[in-house]
Amino acid sequence: MNSTQTDLRLDQEELQELVLGRWAEDRRKMRKLMEDPIFHHQFDLTIAEHRELTLNQLKELADRQVIRKAYPKQFGGQESPGGNIAGFAEMFHAHPSMQIKGGVQWGLFGSAILSLGNEEQHKKWLPAVLNLELPGVYAMTEIGHGSDVGNIDTTATYIPEDDEFEIHTPFRAAWKEFLGNAALHGKAAVVFAQLITKNVNYGVHAFFVPLRDDDGNFLPGVGGEDDGYKGGLNGIDNGRLHFTHVRIPRTNLLDKLGQVDENGDYTTSIASSGRRFFTMLGALVQGRVSLAATAANASALALTGAITYGNQRRQFNAASDIEEQVLLDYGLHQRRLIDRLARTFADIFTANDLVVKFHEVLSGQNDTDENRQELETLAAGIKAVVTWNALDVYQEAREATGGAGYIASKNRFNALRDDLDIYTTFEGDNNVLLQLVGRRLLSDYSKEFANGSFKVLTRYVAERAEDSLYQRSGIRRVIQQVTDVGSDRRSAAWLKDTEVQRSLFTDRVRTQIAEVADALRPVAKKSQAEQAQVFNENQYDLIKAAKSHAQLLQWESFTDALERIEDENTRQIMTWVRDLFALSTIEQDLGWFIEYGHISQQRARALRQYTNRLAARLRPHAQDLVDSFGFTQNHLRMDITTGIEEERQEEAMEYYRRLRASGDAPIPEKVYRARQK
Amino acid sequence: MNSTQTDLRLDQEELQELVLGRWAEDRRKMRKLMEDPIFHHQFDLTIAEHRELTLNQLKELADRQVIRKAYPKQFGGQESPGGNIAGFAEMFHAHPSMQIKGGVQWGLFGSAILSLGNEEQHKKWLPAVLNLELPGVYAMTEIGHGSDVGNIDTTATYIPEDDEFEIHTPFRAAWKEFLGNAALHGKAAVVFAQLITKNVNYGVHAFFVPLRDDDGNFLPGVGGEDDGYKGGLNGIDNGRLHFTHVRIPRTNLLDKLGQVDENGDYTTSIASSGRRFFTMLGALVQGRVSLAATAANASALALTGAITYGNQRRQFNAASDIEEQVLLDYGLHQRRLIDRLARTFADIFTANDLVVKFHEVLSGQNDTDENRQELETLAAGIKAVVTWNALDVYQEAREATGGAGYIASKNRFNALRDDLDIYTTFEGDNNVLLQLVGRRLLSDYSKEFANGSFKVLTRYVAERAEDSLYQRSGIRRVIQQVTDVGSDRRSAAWLKDTEVQRSLFTDRVRTQIAEVADALRPVAKKSQAEQAQVFNENQYDLIKAAKSHAQLLQWESFTDALERIEDENTRQIMTWVRDLFALSTIEQDLGWFIEYGHISQQRARALRQYTNRLAARLRPHAQDLVDSFGFTQNHLRMDITTGIEEERQEEAMEYYRRLRASGDAPIPEKVYRARQK
Repeated sequence: MNSTQTDLRLDQEELQELVLGRWAEDRRKMRKLMEDPIFHHQFDLTIAEHRELTLNQLKELADRQVIRKAYPKQFGGQESPGGNIAGFAEMFHAHPSMQIKGGVQWGLFGSAILSLGNEEQHKKWLPAVLNLELPGVYAMTEIGHGSDVGNIDTTATYIPEDDEFEIHTPFRAAWKEFLGNAALHGKAAVVFAQLITKNVNYGVHAFFVPLRDDDGNFLPGVGGEDDGYKGGLNGIDNGRLHFTHVRIPRTNLLDKLGQVDENGDYTTSIASSGRRFFTMLGALVQGRVSLAATAANASALALTGAITYGNQRRQFNAASDIEEQVLLDYGLHQRRLIDRLARTFADIFTANDLVVKFHEVLSGQNDTDENRQELETLAAGIKAVVTWNALDVYQEAREATGGAGYIASKNRFNALRDDLDIYTTFEGDNNVLLQLVGRRLLSDYSKEFANGSFKVLTRYVAERAEDSLYQRSGIRRVIQQVTDVGSDRRSAAWLKDTEVQRSLFTDRVRTQIAEVADALRPVAKKSQAEQAQVFNENQYDLIKAAKSHAQLLQWESFTDALERIEDENTRQIMTWVRDLFALSTIEQDLGWFIEYGHISQQRARALRQYTNRLAARLRPHAQDLVDSFGFTQNHLRMDITTGIEEERQEEAMEYYRRLRASGDAPIPEKVYRARQK
Repeated sequence: MNSTQTDLRLDQEELQELVLGRWAEDRRKMRKLMEDPIFHHQFDLTIAEHRELTLNQLKELADRQVIRKAYPKQFGGQESPGGNIAGFAEMFHAHPSMQIKGGVQWGLFGSAILSLGNEEQHKKWLPAVLNLELPGVYAMTEIGHGSDVGNIDTTATYIPEDDEFEIHTPFRAAWKEFLGNAALHGKAAVVFAQLITKNVNYGVHAFFVPLRDDDGNFLPGVGGEDDGYKGGLNGIDNGRLHFTHVRIPRTNLLDKLGQVDENGDYTTSIASSGRRFFTMLGALVQGRVSLAATAANASALALTGAITYGNQRRQFNAASDIEEQVLLDYGLHQRRLIDRLARTFADIFTANDLVVKFHEVLSGQNDTDENRQELETLAAGIKAVVTWNALDVYQEAREATGGAGYIASKNRFNALRDDLDIYTTFEGDNNVLLQLVGRRLLSDYSKEFANGSFKVLTRYVAERAEDSLYQRSGIRRVIQQVTDVGSDRRSAAWLKDTEVQRSLFTDRVRTQIAEVADALRPVAKKSQAEQAQVFNENQYDLIKAAKSHAQLLQWESFTDALERIEDENTRQIMTWVRDLFALSTIEQDLGWFIEYGHISQQRARALRQYTNRLAARLRPHAQDLVDSFGFTQNHLRMDITTGIEEERQEEAMEYYRRLRASGDAPIPEKVYRARQK
């Protein structure tokens, strides 16, 4: 390493601004608030105690009026969907159960009333939703369906003689399942059901359904079960609900998208039932964006802990004069933590961009159909990779901090990991979401193919289209002819070239999608069963293509972020971080890149070596990088970041200094035996 | 798929015998016992309640005399170290906290007294250890040291005038940490400390130290802290202990390996302090073997749950006539679960072989120095990969079963995962263990290099040595010249060839080790600091080599197991399973294999396709394969394996059948609108 590289210091303030993104102020305010122990996690609680704590924290949040940002000014809100999510992400480190229960109440239940209800319904219910007088349930998922919401079996049948809807779950598979607030606290629910009137099924609509009386007893026809002890988030009272011929007034249909009059006639402003359905699921997109933003922030927290400890902990031998290396000086430890730090920056920048996109659509700044569709695709892919990354980061942080990392009440890794675990199937199973992305990419690809143009295959991929050397015919494609005779230095220069990285990420998506499309084309006109079989055979590869796409998005967001850095040193260091993200990501799929001729065998070797070197080069900056996240001890609340480790080392070394000075230090057996001889 | 492939049925009984291994009878007995709810996990307990439950279960185990298998007949045992571990592995599914607390009591504390103490000490303490009148602590790890036991700072200084040892932890870093039974139940401890007499330090020895009086209060000079809420295993009362000039009789030194007489003169039968130290740590090897066997068994349990559910769960649309596929019919789901099933069989066979090796050494059947060393290396590597695999299996099983998988009280995945989490750093951090393996391989390699023979590089690798085409000079090595013009069928034949697979696994280890050795050689004569730096730069690659070695061991054990299968169909199916293990493992590191010329680009492509096909080919056998593990519903205790999912589907389909028959079924909106036109 040359000295200029270690002499660089990054500007933590500027980097922090970039990390916190467009709604930095909202995030800082929420972080400040979350330092208050009243909002913190507690350990060793029974489920009942944990639920009580969480409910009380929600009341506190409601009282402090900090959860209304996404709501209209009329209800005390700021009409800032982006600011709302940015703040939401900053509740995680305080107490994930509080955060998610708040998400159920104000992000799902309340949002559904807001986005699907009419003005009268807003006035009637939202004030009580916002001040938590009316805790509610978002009753969409059914036991029999999981991610397949279009086919739910709960019905809402209009009964004209009483001007009422009858909500009914005709069998156990139709019971609503895994619902926050359902087991205990929910007084009402937004229930998603097939709207049937005059014997026509108009598809999934949302209904406001009272659940419990003021004493907390189920109303007639309503019933349920407690989901019990979960893998995490046990502060939330998840449960199942069933409805047996439950009657509600016609006016409880949240009818912004579809209306039923007293004659039972159905009207809608959205003729396409498919589009209506997707608008109905809008709250899920918000959920996915929120989970991505939270997961990225969660990874930053864990790595702050593990890297701070890695910079202090020694497998040290206080008795000897040699001060041993701290863990982070070890090559393996660098790859374990600094690779993941690079990926976490990618996660953060990608999630930030996603929140901006979400804000543009939801605030109406740029609410086109195309933009909504793109938002949906982006949210699906990004949520999947960022939440998986977070679980991986938590596991590595736990292992990298050894036994100390396992003591959850002191260092929290396992507790937070357990709360994050459900993110991988929350608001859509990650694999199902990636399949959605894959299908979208396929459809764009086939349009592109039909049009003979490259415009459609998402904005991100399309950018590169004009200068792509991509070949459609044949299976193996050689995008770059790489000269195998290049020196190591030339290889490194090639690897850190932004355009090279862009090509590698872009071409991988295009090739993988083209390959699946090629496999599907021969059966395009065949029977549904044949199509399904061939799709099935290619499903694994399609999901891989969708992951490649999400990684391209991460790389794009990171590269865009670099351009916004003004301080030259900071930009240089962050460019190394971006390079490490790019190359360690490519390294994990190196077989594919060599197999398809994108990287030569020699360059592959250079890539492995250069990636090791990058991690080592970033090692001196690791602490500054995590410090720039800006978490205080009140956010971290980890023993291992308090300096306790260094104190113990000092104490031990002082002991041995004195012992040696006293002349009473015992002689090692080896020395003694040598003297005996 | 041709019909002969699906027509095969495997012989579950024969496969089960193979899976249960040499001590099948011990395992079956323990499994039977563990069906009793008295031994089962309970949820939603406070730490205090969970610890109490666990202690009572230990008393029950002691009363039923089922934990003495490894002990001498004189103490009611069977002198069967292998049978003991086989049985131990079958306690996991009942209650992991009980299993591990039992491991602390009888596998560490008791074993240390047995293996390090003299006959008098056995008679004095073992009966009370075995019947749990004397719950004890294995006090080895210190806060400041973790995996580096040789440098612990606790001292045991002989005081000749009182004929006593003084146990002392001179500073906080020397406190004993993460000790089971320390926070609450432990009445005594085996404390590892530097033995000092006549001002000479003879290194780490073990001492029997009373901790608490009959009322549970610490004895004078002894103190401690409760570790509190952990990431799992909260039925065990882990804690820290410290000792301030605590006096014990000289006869409390467990003195089988080193003795101190009343004059303070030290004697030992093992002159080498290094060898003495490793013998001292014998209980850790037993711990590692036990964790590997348990983790393999744990993976089998999780996959039984997830695959059974995958065979029943549909994202189904009961309202339509088309019965949708079950999850396991999807290509992605096959790769997610059947790949891992193949790896789990590899884990099981490898762990079984390891237990046999352990038994041979510990029972004295084959207790040579070389065998002990090999056992240590094998245990280290196998424990690392098998425990990591188990965590990965649990995560995938949880995600593959969606929200249901997250309800720990119903389906247990998360709860068991949390209890397994510590396995990755238990009894040695997995990465540290792999480094140990890597160093051993390096040392064998350099001996081999010096001798000009291939004999030493572990038995497993050496087997292949004679016919290896391995080239020492140069970095890139081409072991096979693969003809790129081969057809897909020829490629598949090549890939499933046992000798080809053996070469691929073997040559990878050799090449990776040779490369690290090449990198280290130039600094062999340089300063310690320079050597350390170069070692550090190559640490990541060394760990990868050690992982490759462990995967070779898995492949070897699996291939050996195939030869013991008599039923032809079963052998055929299990050969596909072995092939899937081999090829999916190679696929994960495909970049390396292509880069180093072991697999051509075209064969790499064939490998990807053939691996997909193998998973699909095994799909019809998946249920039989997991059923052969032989777990009953009393072991599984998972909602999703009870058939409840199929019942719900039946109920829903019956509902729609009746509805259609009644003629009252609502018309879909699309049909209605089409009629309107």
